[in-house]
Amino acid sequence: MGNEPFEHLYSREARTQQPSAIREICHLAGQPDIRSLAGGWPDPEILPNKETAEIFSELAKDDPACLLQYGTTEGLKDLKEQICSFYKDSEGLSLKCEELLIIHGAQQGMDLLSRILIEPGDIVFAGLPTYFGGTGALQSRGAEIIGVPVDENGLNVEQMEISLKELKAAKPEANIKGIYVIPNFQNPTGATLSLKRRKHLLALADEYDFLIFEDDPYGELRFEDQAIASLRKLDTKERVIHIRSLSKTFSPGVRVAWMTAEKSLIRKMVVSKQFVDSCTNSLGQHIASEFIKKGYLKKQIAKNIEFYSKKRDRVLELLDRHFPATVKYNRPSGGFFIFVHLPENISANDLLQKAKGQKVVFVSGSPFFIDHSGENTFRISYSQVSYEDMEAAVKVLGEILHKL
Amino acid sequence: MGNEPFEHLYSREARTQQPSAIREICHLAGQPDIRSLAGGWPDPEILPNKETAEIFSELAKDDPACLLQYGTTEGLKDLKEQICSFYKDSEGLSLKCEELLIIHGAQQGMDLLSRILIEPGDIVFAGLPTYFGGTGALQSRGAEIIGVPVDENGLNVEQMEISLKELKAAKPEANIKGIYVIPNFQNPTGATLSLKRRKHLLALADEYDFLIFEDDPYGELRFEDQAIASLRKLDTKERVIHIRSLSKTFSPGVRVAWMTAEKSLIRKMVVSKQFVDSCTNSLGQHIASEFIKKGYLKKQIAKNIEFYSKKRDRVLELLDRHFPATVKYNRPSGGFFIFVHLPENISANDLLQKAKGQKVVFVSGSPFFIDHSGENTFRISYSQVSYEDMEAAVKVLGEILHKL
Repeated sequence: MGNEPFEHLYSREARTQQPSAIREICHLAGQPDIRSLAGGWPDPEILPNKETAEIFSELAKDDPACLLQYGTTEGLKDLKEQICSFYKDSEGLSLKCEELLIIHGAQQGMDLLSRILIEPGDIVFAGLPTYFGGTGALQSRGAEIIGVPVDENGLNVEQMEISLKELKAAKPEANIKGIYVIPNFQNPTGATLSLKRRKHLLALADEYDFLIFEDDPYGELRFEDQAIASLRKLDTKERVIHIRSLSKTFSPGVRVAWMTAEKSLIRKMVVSKQFVDSCTNSLGQHIASEFIKKGYLKKQIAKNIEFYSKKRDRVLELLDRHFPATVKYNRPSGGFFIFVHLPENISANDLLQKAKGQKVVFVSGSPFFIDHSGENTFRISYSQVSYEDMEAAVKVLGEILHKL
Repeated sequence: MGNEPFEHLYSREARTQQPSAIREICHLAGQPDIRSLAGGWPDPEILPNKETAEIFSELAKDDPACLLQYGTTEGLKDLKEQICSFYKDSEGLSLKCEELLIIHGAQQGMDLLSRILIEPGDIVFAGLPTYFGGTGALQSRGAEIIGVPVDENGLNVEQMEISLKELKAAKPEANIKGIYVIPNFQNPTGATLSLKRRKHLLALADEYDFLIFEDDPYGELRFEDQAIASLRKLDTKERVIHIRSLSKTFSPGVRVAWMTAEKSLIRKMVVSKQFVDSCTNSLGQHIASEFIKKGYLKKQIAKNIEFYSKKRDRVLELLDRHFPATVKYNRPSGGFFIFVHLPENISANDLLQKAKGQKVVFVSGSPFFIDHSGENTFRISYSQVSYEDMEAAVKVLGEILHKL
């Protein structure tokens, strides 16, 4: 490490934090001849460019200065009102403005809640596997993560209850602060938490006095079956901090997401955000507000569902055709991801190395496992890849797998 | 605190962090009949609406999807190249892309450097007074701030050397991590650090092995006299983390700022930002890049200088006319702020309470003092207030002061 002249001045975070496996592989994926099944980025084809341009030109005519000026840390009032009516319409959930905070992407939600809740050594539960952006934010404040197995019905809450009991018996002084959960079409497994388990989780939160960090970027991208009520909606004890984003339904580039929670928690996160980045970008907030107000979000969600369900169908067809029968994967009913299990003796990292040689990339599974297991797993994202590249990439992977 | 049901789960940060005195007073300032000398917000009159709308419609025609898509955590390559040539032209400073990170406002720069450098109890020096957004970010990671007096030539670096010697003698194990400095037209004093002191500070950083956190949002808004080279430019040992923003020169609403530092420090902050908010908003970055490329930033800076120097002249005229002779204030040669010293026995908070009764607000001085001194000081911002409100507000303050 001789080329890091100020290493002796680093914090624990700088010494220990590992780069995001997704963000790092996306550098590679950005190269023009790479076929990427890696990032959970929206397909550029479906981004609502026309509607956004229309909104911008209207705003620029009507009230141009507001687009370029600072906003409050809490977020644009108009946008909050739009979000409140969106929840009212879609979930029958009544929110107050002071229960909402506008943030720079869902990732910032995980950072803010970690800041106000986590001290080094505090315990947070999380899926085994789960999205490492969420657990990474918690770990950067020193949280100790305990894994909860994930099956086809999401987090195994029954197993979690056993862990809670064991932990309380072995270490009564442990500070259990929460559980990180992606309830719908989880990243990376695509699994959705059942209603029964949602209710069980809420009961455990109340019994063991912890909070639930509900990260729900994919819930609206449901291709079939009935939606299940959000934890926030089911919650009668205000124990859920719910994070939702426009990144998968409208645009990640505007960096607009929000959190909703009990108002004193929101207030603490507002104060924290004052010292984090002062306020969310006004440009994106104004555009997002109009996008919802004009009914474009609803339409865009419907378009996305049609668009991505076709891509899901196609990638499953290709996997069925090209992958050996020993390779297992789920058939998600929404979201962006398929999670692949190779035979135990095959390493996904080895597969990735060979695939890179043929210009194909994906994200290996083990970064999603807090215990670094899952060496034989990997995640396929069908969201961004073109049909042509999807076909070629799955073929390449299939050919390598047949030889392994 | 009975209305904070989850207080027992809070982190130390949530328990101790005080809201930003500026962000809080801005809620009041947002009311339509308030005359505000509080926020350092740009005047909406001067925001380049026309140019931004032009850029947006061009981008929406040429490459619409890029505006709405995710970007890399490091930031948009085109924007970085524009920033590199901007520094080359304006300062003769040669930067490489890997020495730059695009961030959501300068405040995020302070958060990121705090994350990679600060452990609880680490020492950072800072002006007495200085902008509390900077020290607040450091404190949220547990930094202990030691104040350095500020005079008309900025931070009293000679005094700082004495403090350093005393500290090293009394507490040899102290981890001195850095100094937070706003070198040009400092917030809140308007003072500029002299060249001699800049060189002295760099020598101290090398001798005592700490870094310099150079926060320079106002440097380009110099109304008269020659610019002084930035600490980053004068630095031969790569000990400066330099933060600059477009918030005061172009638009705060786009939330685009950047940091430049030695590349391994930048790399650590990139990894940290992956878990903070993934990436800076693409919309703002693309617009900012074009704004610089088209030469609009240079023109806008020239316009700003003419515009704000007139406002500075006018507010000084008004202060000279309406304030009692016992009240002292500086005559800044750039930036947005005038710092007022009342006679020792007069409290700026009392003045603020009375002024609020007449719908006039400003920011009291004591939040800028880490030792909570400065009760007889306050900050006047002339940037955002209209000429009409400026005149009325200064008159109101003068009348109250004459009666105190």
